[in-house]
Amino acid sequence: MKYHVDGELVPESEATVNVRDRGFMYGDAAFETMRAYGGSVFEWEAHADRLANTCETLGIDHGIDDEELRERVLETLRANDLTDAYLKLSLSRGVQPGKLTPGPTTDPTVVVIVAELPRGGTEGDPVWDGPATVQTTMTRRIPDAAIPANAKTHNYLNGILARNELIDDADEALLRDTDDYVAEGATSNVFFVGEDGLHTPSLDGPVLPGITRSVVISLADEADIPVYTGQYTPDDVRSAKEAFLTNSTWELRPIETLDGIEIGGGPVTTLLSRRFDARVERNHYE
Amino acid sequence: MKYHVDGELVPESEATVNVRDRGFMYGDAAFETMRAYGGSVFEWEAHADRLANTCETLGIDHGIDDEELRERVLETLRANDLTDAYLKLSLSRGVQPGKLTPGPTTDPTVVVIVAELPRGGTEGDPVWDGPATVQTTMTRRIPDAAIPANAKTHNYLNGILARNELIDDADEALLRDTDDYVAEGATSNVFFVGEDGLHTPSLDGPVLPGITRSVVISLADEADIPVYTGQYTPDDVRSAKEAFLTNSTWELRPIETLDGIEIGGGPVTTLLSRRFDARVERNHYE
Repeated sequence: MKYHVDGELVPESEATVNVRDRGFMYGDAAFETMRAYGGSVFEWEAHADRLANTCETLGIDHGIDDEELRERVLETLRANDLTDAYLKLSLSRGVQPGKLTPGPTTDPTVVVIVAELPRGGTEGDPVWDGPATVQTTMTRRIPDAAIPANAKTHNYLNGILARNELIDDADEALLRDTDDYVAEGATSNVFFVGEDGLHTPSLDGPVLPGITRSVVISLADEADIPVYTGQYTPDDVRSAKEAFLTNSTWELRPIETLDGIEIGGGPVTTLLSRRFDARVERNHYE
Repeated sequence: MKYHVDGELVPESEATVNVRDRGFMYGDAAFETMRAYGGSVFEWEAHADRLANTCETLGIDHGIDDEELRERVLETLRANDLTDAYLKLSLSRGVQPGKLTPGPTTDPTVVVIVAELPRGGTEGDPVWDGPATVQTTMTRRIPDAAIPANAKTHNYLNGILARNELIDDADEALLRDTDDYVAEGATSNVFFVGEDGLHTPSLDGPVLPGITRSVVISLADEADIPVYTGQYTPDDVRSAKEAFLTNSTWELRPIETLDGIEIGGGPVTTLLSRRFDARVERNHYE
């Protein structure tokens, strides 16, 4: 596989950053995880906007325009003869003099890594091996007052510590905020279906504004399924009729159990998955 | 300069990690910042113990013993003909398959970087340009429930966001916890002197157990200065008779002002600085 590093395509074994890159030293970097379908990037504009927002939150004024970033992503796809793929675009502040306080971003590090990932959804095989087994963790989501959750950064230990807590066959952690309300999974947003419609934690809490989350909300609107955002407890999820996780890689992934309590997918999850897949079909393969 | 990367001494320009190293992707790494005086590492055992503790918190079971780590640090010093230096030892989980959940640490990445740093203290020139100008920030310290503060990791955006808030000539951020109590500086512990003795925030809060913090407490004990740890507000610091910051690089650094209010050093700060310097002299140069 070839990766894109600092404007060059290089074999993955030679794809490196200096040990003094602030991305390595401090996790001082922004990133986006994306899907390519049929050779183009799903929801590129939304990813580019969120990356810009993360960079603004971190104060990384990199001066590289969105078109240039997209071109590097597409070059990486083409160099590996891939059309359906997982992509990760990272942008760090680069190497700077030895101080924690950042200086001007004169030489940012831009990295694109890629892996083959066949189309999922209802038309293809889902990328996940099966529905999610989820466990509520003691590790809480970092509050916005410490690091704003709308910034998608290389500081990922919060999610790693949550994942490290998982026992038995659990494969995703459900993190609560410090007030005990459900925030999100380690790498996913959470939705559940009640009597009245679809629910997902509000972005007023420490919740990443997921691109797939946003697509699912718009698909529910199109299908006249009421969508509510608010503060929920794990028990609200455990007692739901259906529940699922979203992220760019998984798309929609049903929650089989939360803390051992069976939930599973159902008609709403299936409907939204089909509509998601139809959007991918329409935008990328027709 | 030569750095130590994965068991080899390499020129700093060739000191790299793969872009898929978890240290770069997630800041999934432990580190220690240390001083060498007279060719040996100040408080090596304390640093080695804290590194082991951080690795345990993160679940990095790297299998490299302390003596081997110390040898790599000393080799780095010798390769650069340095005796008085700044050192940073980092240990990441390395490259693993593309999942957030860590696998066993079969190939950790060990990095030692170094820079010349003449001896500070009262015998030499302090490494800081002058006393600290400190500002209380809106950015709060990450609570222990999200990431335990006793782990010293490459997830450093919390401190970077705090430093980004600094205005005018402020050069260190004072972070409070989410309950408004003083936690620590972005890269330092904080001490202040009241009528009754020396005070520093308790490790019950989200406070790094600084090695220099611990040395200063033992020096105060030796000098029969009462030491109190507890919960303090920024106003407790602003109204103190003296205040100073500690870290391995700065040693003891007086706080000239906090939020524009003058504090400064004084007899206790001077006494402890002299005793710190005497300990360095005794352990490293006699």
